[in-house]
Order: sequence, then C-alpha cells, then structure tokens
Amino acid sequence: MPDSSIEARGERELIRRLGGYLARAGGGPPGTAPAVGFGDDMAGVDPADPALLWTVDMLMDGVDFDSAIHRWEEIGRKALAVNLSDCAAMAAQPISALCAVALSNRLAMADAEQIILGAHELGRRFGCPVVGGDTNSWDAPTVISVSVAARMPSGLSPVPRGGARPGDRIWLTGPCGGSILGRHMTFEPRIDLAIRVARDLRPHAMIDISDGVAIDLDRICEASGCGATIDNLLLEAAVHADARELARRDRRPAREHVLNDGEDFELIVVLACEVGAEQAATLGLLPLGEITAEPGLRLRHADGQCEALRPGGWEHFR
Amino acid sequence: MPDSSIEARGERELIRRLGGYLARAGGGPPGTAPAVGFGDDMAGVDPADPALLWTVDMLMDGVDFDSAIHRWEEIGRKALAVNLSDCAAMAAQPISALCAVALSNRLAMADAEQIILGAHELGRRFGCPVVGGDTNSWDAPTVISVSVAARMPSGLSPVPRGGARPGDRIWLTGPCGGSILGRHMTFEPRIDLAIRVARDLRPHAMIDISDGVAIDLDRICEASGCGATIDNLLLEAAVHADARELARRDRRPAREHVLNDGEDFELIVVLACEVGAEQAATLGLLPLGEITAEPGLRLRHADGQCEALRPGGWEHFR
Repeated sequence: MPDSSIEARGERELIRRLGGYLARAGGGPPGTAPAVGFGDDMAGVDPADPALLWTVDMLMDGVDFDSAIHRWEEIGRKALAVNLSDCAAMAAQPISALCAVALSNRLAMADAEQIILGAHELGRRFGCPVVGGDTNSWDAPTVISVSVAARMPSGLSPVPRGGARPGDRIWLTGPCGGSILGRHMTFEPRIDLAIRVARDLRPHAMIDISDGVAIDLDRICEASGCGATIDNLLLEAAVHADARELARRDRRPAREHVLNDGEDFELIVVLACEVGAEQAATLGLLPLGEITAEPGLRLRHADGQCEALRPGGWEHFR
Repeated sequence: MPDSSIEARGERELIRRLGGYLARAGGGPPGTAPAVGFGDDMAGVDPADPALLWTVDMLMDGVDFDSAIHRWEEIGRKALAVNLSDCAAMAAQPISALCAVALSNRLAMADAEQIILGAHELGRRFGCPVVGGDTNSWDAPTVISVSVAARMPSGLSPVPRGGARPGDRIWLTGPCGGSILGRHMTFEPRIDLAIRVARDLRPHAMIDISDGVAIDLDRICEASGCGATIDNLLLEAAVHADARELARRDRRPAREHVLNDGEDFELIVVLACEVGAEQAATLGLLPLGEITAEPGLRLRHADGQCEALRPGGWEHFR
C-alpha cells in the first residue's frame, strides 16, 4: 500500500488530522468552546446546552460481530451497548438512540427485527429507547450504526480523556482480557458505576476500554500530555478468568491479553492521588498504576525495573 | 425468496412493525407522548425537551452513490445533505452532526478526509458542524452514516407527516424528476424555505422527497389516514428540466420521472385550503393537487377522469 493509505497511518492519525480542522472550523458562537474536544468518547450536541452529549458507533459483520456465530438479537444488543459504554466513559446518562442498518440481502425480516429488538431491550433497561432510524438493504455484509444521546446528571461535568495529571492514580472498573471468549457480546455498560465514581471520587479522566488497556490508556496519556507506569503486580491482579483461559490455550502471558485484547468495555479511571485507596476499592475499582510526567507507557516489575510498553491493542487501519 | 424476506415485504412494513412495539415500549415518563411519531423524518431526542430532534441516514457505495463516478468530497456532502433535508421536512434548524464511516480498505487517507470535509463544508454553511464520529475500515464497499441534531425555531412545532386533512392543498417546493442526472448529489436542502413556510403558512404536513413524489406523498396520506388527487396539468408544470431530458432519452413520459424518480429532496407541503395561492406562490411553491378523504393516490386528467396511481418510487427491500 502507498504511504498515504489508511492502513499505514492508523485511525488515530486520521482523527488527529480531522480534529485539527473540525475544531478550527468551530460550530458555536465565537468565544464558546465545546464542552468536550473532538476525539473524546462523546461530543457536545449544542454549544447552548453543554450537558447534552452524543456519540455514534458503527459495527460491521465480520469485524465487530460474526453473523455466522452470533444471534441477531445479541448483535443488536452489542451495537447499542458499545455506545452506552461511551456514555459511561463520560459519566453521562443515556436518553435515547437511533439505529441505522444496511442489511445484507440474505436477511429475513425477522432477523432485521431482532437487531432492533436486541438494541431496544438493552436500551429500555438503561432508560435509552430506540426512537428512530434508517433501514436499508444491499448486496454486502450487514452494517449497524447506532447513535446515542445522553445528558450529564445534575452537578456533574463530562469526564474527559485529557484531564490526567502526573502523580494521579490509574484504576480499572473490573478485570480485563479474553473478552473474545464471549464477554465482547454480552458486557454490561458501566453507567451506574461511572456516575457514582464521578460523584464520589471526581475523576480527572476516564475512557472505556474498547481497543485494549494499553492503547486506551495511551489515549488518555496522549490527550493529557503525559505518560503512565503500570505496576506488574497490580496488572496480574486485574487478569480476568477469560484471559487466563485464553493464555492457557495460546501459551501467551495472561497479562498480554489484559493489555492488548480489547472489547473489555470496562473503564480506565484516573483519580487524584489524594483519593483514598479504600474509597476507590469500596466502589470495586482495581488499582493499575500511576500517571507520569514522562511520556509513554511503561511496565514496572517487582524489582523496580521498567520496560517500555508499545500499545498493541486493536486499531482500525493498522 | 421466502415470504418472510425483507425484499418481499418492504421497508415500510418493517418500519410499521418496529414502530408498533418501539412506541409501546415508550421512553419518556408515563403520560408524556413523543413530539413526533416513530417513522417520521426526525425523532425526538429527549421527552423533556420536545424542541430537540435528530435523524440518521446511511449511504452505501453502489446504492446511494458510486465511488467509481463521484468524488469523495461530494459523497460526504450528500451524506450530510440528505439529513439536512430531513430537518427541512420538520422545519427544524440543524445544530451539529456525527459522521460514522466503514471505509473500503482500498481508500487512501486523503479520500477518508475528503468525505468528512465534504460533509463539514456543507454543514458549516447550515450552522451544523461535524462534531464527532467513528472511523472504521473493512474489506467491503464504503458505508457512511451521518446523524444530525436540530432544534425547532422558537414558536414553531415540528411539522409531522400525519397532519394532512381532506380538502388540504398539496404543494411542492420546486420542480422534480431526473435527479439522477446530477442533482441527487448536489441538491440544496430546503431548510430556510421550510422554516419560512412553517412561520408564514402553518403547514399541516411536510415530507422531503427522497423516494419519489408518489411514494412520499403516499407516506403523508398513510400517516394522515387519507388519500390524494394529483392534477395532471399541475404535475406537468412541476416537471424539472432534467426530467424532460431523461424522458427524451428513454421515451417514457416526463411525468413518470416526476412521480417516481426519487432523490429530488424538494419538500411536499400540505397547506389548509384557506391559505391563499398567491401567498404560497410568493414563497415559490408549486401547486400539485389536494388531499382527499378517499384513501389512495389518483391522477386527475384535464377531462376530469381519474386514474389510480400506484406509488412506484424507490424503496429499499422491494
């Protein structure tokens, strides 16, 4: 591929370039800054109403799900759930969703209904009904695009990616790795926990883990202009049972699955170092490491030695 | 295909079935009705803020555009423009947009940027910047999904599809037919005109013509529980020059192109019969016919004879 191909440059480079001129172009009246920057988990809908956010995720058959394996209802559920996870990352309360589909011609109407029903049933539990959409069919694999609007609970501001400061502590909302064994289709978005964390612990930064602990932590670091050190002992304690099972099968270290598997849809939470460990632990958070002034990701071993980590999670266009 | 296939039943049947249980499921607090029904051009975002609407449209390569012919910038422009046309159909003022893409692996990064830039440049002119999105790539044709949020101008309510009443007059915002010759990529969404029409003429119903005058007028009739008679003389006066050119080439009557071509993105405006013809003409509206109590679409010839019209515009899944 030529050097200008998308694969060669990566999705982050594209978003960086888009962010540059979309931010310059601006949308609100002069002097109003958007509540959240381009490239965060959600964007502001209206400069006049900074508590209103929205997000979109597109899922493709053969990439984000496999219609030969997964039921259409759970596929529709996932298409909404990944958006609810973005809401959690901002500590926002979802309101409603739109669902657009390009359905493979091979689908029956009952399949198409199952997609919407799967999304709608999950949405109902989270106060986020599907209120409209766009249905199309074509002679190619199925694509589902769900948009979700959300409102910040009163007294809370959106938790950005870019607020981490050197000395802050890094936490996870749950163990990670091995989601491919099934959790990537069935995970519960962490909205209630995220809002509680936001109220009680006033996090400096949050992101949901879609592409892997390492790459998503690196996104926080990049947006915050800092780096991070992961403590290997803490990392070992954050290994999900699925990651251990996968490690047993492929004989790779379980911690590599934690760092790089992606689609955990837990949250990385960055807290001021003043926040007590007991307070964080009460909410079920797992410690992982700390934010550093030095850029880049490092893994610190028990003997104090550090090795550089290259974020290796899933990224489109790599 | 089996009887249950999507092609056999049509998109409208799917939307009808979805609308049934999504409406039942509800989203707002008990007793609150959504400002607009499921299946209208836009949906309400938040029961607590009925002036805020949103919509989504998905465009697929080979269906809604042809990347072998069209430039990526004009493709991106169209992906936003079809949503702005939905805003016009409700008389809503767009605020911001999200753009999600599944890009064919064959695309270069410059192509991907052109899609977003094409959308963003049009959006900027309409006060509707692209504020975020989702970028993906895959080994299949490119899909673009744009969501737009909009707010009702103060003093205006969303203009629904279902408000037409027998005796109302039917108008068009411009001549139709033959958009495939180029206008389907370059049309100007009728937002300013729609808001002026809403303020000055208080329309009972509006819809934008995405699938053809006949099928979109039929949608108004179905939502309103009535029918419509199109006057053949008026129809002839609403033939776009492109429809005449296409009729010259394919030797079909030009009026068939007006009725069935689709992608005109003009509006069908239904006005109370008390609204003066001069008032409507001042805003550039073209008369087309009238709403009837009797269901179905009819074409009335100069001699008073009527023939039944079967809506034959473009519909996904047919």
